[in-house]
Amino acid sequence: MSEHYFQEYYPDIMAHCYGCGRLNPQGHHIQSRWEGDETVVRFTPEPYHIAVPGYVYGGMLASLIDCHGTGTAAAAAYRAEGRSMDSLPALRFLTASLHVDYLKPTPLGIELEVRGKVKEVKGRKVVVEEWIVANGVTTVRGEVVAVQVPEGMVEALVNGEGN
Amino acid sequence: MSEHYFQEYYPDIMAHCYGCGRLNPQGHHIQSRWEGDETVVRFTPEPYHIAVPGYVYGGMLASLIDCHGTGTAAAAAYRAEGRSMDSLPALRFLTASLHVDYLKPTPLGIELEVRGKVKEVKGRKVVVEEWIVANGVTTVRGEVVAVQVPEGMVEALVNGEGN
Repeated sequence: MSEHYFQEYYPDIMAHCYGCGRLNPQGHHIQSRWEGDETVVRFTPEPYHIAVPGYVYGGMLASLIDCHGTGTAAAAAYRAEGRSMDSLPALRFLTASLHVDYLKPTPLGIELEVRGKVKEVKGRKVVVEEWIVANGVTTVRGEVVAVQVPEGMVEALVNGEGN
Repeated sequence: MSEHYFQEYYPDIMAHCYGCGRLNPQGHHIQSRWEGDETVVRFTPEPYHIAVPGYVYGGMLASLIDCHGTGTAAAAAYRAEGRSMDSLPALRFLTASLHVDYLKPTPLGIELEVRGKVKEVKGRKVVVEEWIVANGVTTVRGEVVAVQVPEGMVEALVNGEGN
């Protein structure tokens, strides 16, 4: 299981996300995995994901925090229920709030490591703490409050009643 | 002046941003303008800027808040000095922190209005309050803490000493 990335298990109808959808040809294809009790994304921004010359665009970094946050929340929810991410019912999370602190400029042109850790679970809300490491230096800290999508809504989307 | 958008006045070297750089062919080309004492972006996300079917990706909305926040901070700084954005020295801001609350899903396929207002100025820091309106409904609220880039750093970038 741990070789697979979380977003691989999202139902097709929920796999179009510009940030992490495997079915979005124009998207970023952010891929999250477990690494012990933490989660990780390894991602090399494209040369055009630029802020000022030499540095990564803040909105791209916010996107990494966003999708890795909801992915981590989902993975943690499955883990808490002791079942694999390809089992049903599908558990999916949406972002309720996103916070990003840009501690230092993040260099462009290298692989970044986005790390995540579940900070708190309150009912259907999961708070995920994250940080981005570039060349061994933490350049960004972020937090996502993710909310579980009601099961009925996931089913409605899967059954084509979502639009 | 008010017909022009803020990002039009950024020095070329600072006009490559993936969110708002006029010189980034792959970028979003976010364009901010004054409207009285508020600032505004009108932006229609592309069909592939999707979260789940029918709704806009949260990272795209965060990008709108991000670039409109730094743009608003810069425009407000020029206005405070009583000079136009094409005058020197160039005043540019970077994002220190970004907060986004997703109040409701934001519908995809229509023009969004991103509005901004300067909430606080503390020395070189400007706090910008923002909200996104879709079909007359506020779907997102955000806040950017923007920090003025030291003049010497802008000059260094313009003179090609930035890398």
